[in-house]
Amino acid sequence: MDIKSGLLKKDKRAAARLISMMENGETEAINIIKECYSMTGHARIIGITGPPGAGKSTITDRLTKQLRKAGKQVGIVAVDPTSPFTGGAILGDRVRMTDLSTDPGVFIRSMGTRGALGGLSKAVHGTVRILDIFGMDYIFVETVGVGQSEIDIVRLADTVVMVMVPGLGDDIQTIKAGIMEIGDVFAVNKSDRDGAERTAAEIEAMLDFNRNDKYRPPVLNIIAKDDAGMEKLLELIENHWEYQNKSGGYIQKKANRLKTEIMDIFRDEVMKTVYGLSEDTNIIDELVQRVMDRQTDPYSAADKLMNEFRKNRQHSH
Amino acid sequence: MDIKSGLLKKDKRAAARLISMMENGETEAINIIKECYSMTGHARIIGITGPPGAGKSTITDRLTKQLRKAGKQVGIVAVDPTSPFTGGAILGDRVRMTDLSTDPGVFIRSMGTRGALGGLSKAVHGTVRILDIFGMDYIFVETVGVGQSEIDIVRLADTVVMVMVPGLGDDIQTIKAGIMEIGDVFAVNKSDRDGAERTAAEIEAMLDFNRNDKYRPPVLNIIAKDDAGMEKLLELIENHWEYQNKSGGYIQKKANRLKTEIMDIFRDEVMKTVYGLSEDTNIIDELVQRVMDRQTDPYSAADKLMNEFRKNRQHSH
Repeated sequence: MDIKSGLLKKDKRAAARLISMMENGETEAINIIKECYSMTGHARIIGITGPPGAGKSTITDRLTKQLRKAGKQVGIVAVDPTSPFTGGAILGDRVRMTDLSTDPGVFIRSMGTRGALGGLSKAVHGTVRILDIFGMDYIFVETVGVGQSEIDIVRLADTVVMVMVPGLGDDIQTIKAGIMEIGDVFAVNKSDRDGAERTAAEIEAMLDFNRNDKYRPPVLNIIAKDDAGMEKLLELIENHWEYQNKSGGYIQKKANRLKTEIMDIFRDEVMKTVYGLSEDTNIIDELVQRVMDRQTDPYSAADKLMNEFRKNRQHSH
Repeated sequence: MDIKSGLLKKDKRAAARLISMMENGETEAINIIKECYSMTGHARIIGITGPPGAGKSTITDRLTKQLRKAGKQVGIVAVDPTSPFTGGAILGDRVRMTDLSTDPGVFIRSMGTRGALGGLSKAVHGTVRILDIFGMDYIFVETVGVGQSEIDIVRLADTVVMVMVPGLGDDIQTIKAGIMEIGDVFAVNKSDRDGAERTAAEIEAMLDFNRNDKYRPPVLNIIAKDDAGMEKLLELIENHWEYQNKSGGYIQKKANRLKTEIMDIFRDEVMKTVYGLSEDTNIIDELVQRVMDRQTDPYSAADKLMNEFRKNRQHSH
């Protein structure tokens, strides 16, 4: 059975294979997504983000189980930090999800942050497309909410759940401030710990500063491991979805998301062409050597690269 | 006085102005860096990275004071997370450095992580160049060591000091694993806390896995706020510098760094051209609309953008 038929027949191995092919930039994978693109748009995409140790995996796990009880199909894309020592995505929390991975209505995929040249965002976008074509009703995208690239990735979600925990230090609060804006629903997990109410109050106080928006993100205390507050959390996610559909904000959000995706693909194509250029002629290494010898500078070297790129594109078309 | 003369006469305001111009991508700034490029290569670049709250600012502060006593000029580039609420770089630790900022032999610059399109790495590279031309002997680049973009930035340093603290949770240890590879010197700060020896031992154990390299990064317990171990830390930084110069590894590192810089500049130029294209013709918005109407897909849209880009480059040359 070929990959495309497998995907449409809901064969998980075909989906997994297609994702790998797409990650490797194989033309065949891109062509399958192009051909099936009109089938996308069904899945609801939910981002789960927050600092390390906030319990994002447990929350995803519990929400997935609720959705499964309601008969929904669920995809999970977990963006993991990559260890240069182990060479792949760190399993960490993922191993806890093994009971989900045997559920035929659930598809879990981990992706490392190693992929250079901004390729990760493109890979996550592509995976979400594939799981959407596959027929998933909900797709969770889980990322550690620190760092610009992680923020960019979670922006592709329809609804972003920002997970916090009580008692993080001041510096972590500072980091959090940088990503407050992208939260549609705030969940203070591990709320059996001291300071849970205070953390919720602090988030509310930060939200008071944000006067641009008519939508006020709700803040909820939960204990994911005990399943406390998890039904309410799903309800708040649904509320946000209904709000943005009614308000028309969803159209703009979808447009922004598509723009990011198109630009990511475009940039990736440019860089691939340039590196391809390099394999043939070693031009990049030559330029580096000339800068090292101070015969030129990095800016002029980039200009030269642009000229080569332009020449190459002209020849090949 | 024009900016270039100001820079060469060690006028800090001229340097600050030039950095802002470079951040904004002004051609004049790039031309000044090009003209003065042969003056670069003097400064030693030291990266200070680690998780939030590890005390990176205090360490930079103490090392700077030691270097100042030895008569060295010091530049500090602090990469801060950006708050969408405040709209700029979060001062946070920076405010502690006010005593340094009045020292004429010290130049401090904060940069936010907001700049999209991979512009931050390029901006940090450019700032380091400018401070190098300015005549700084040492330049510290301080970043929160989480997220791929932050890791990319700290790679530009000649020597990377990885700061850890005792008693971080397991999840933070996981994050740390992802960036262990880039540490040339490990400093366990706040070593008056419980578990400092254990943290150092854990780092040593992780380093045992890394058999590729002949250089074994040293691990040092310090208490930066009490100035304990700080002279030894500077000594270890110097040792690493001498090692890599003797071993020849520095040439390869410099080449890799330049390659990254050239590619960053190139990519930025491409994206600027494409966005310029968009301002004229609205082509990106049109493509987004067509994908939303499912008349096309994101991959085909990116192909169209590439054609437009190519056409535009042909016309303008």
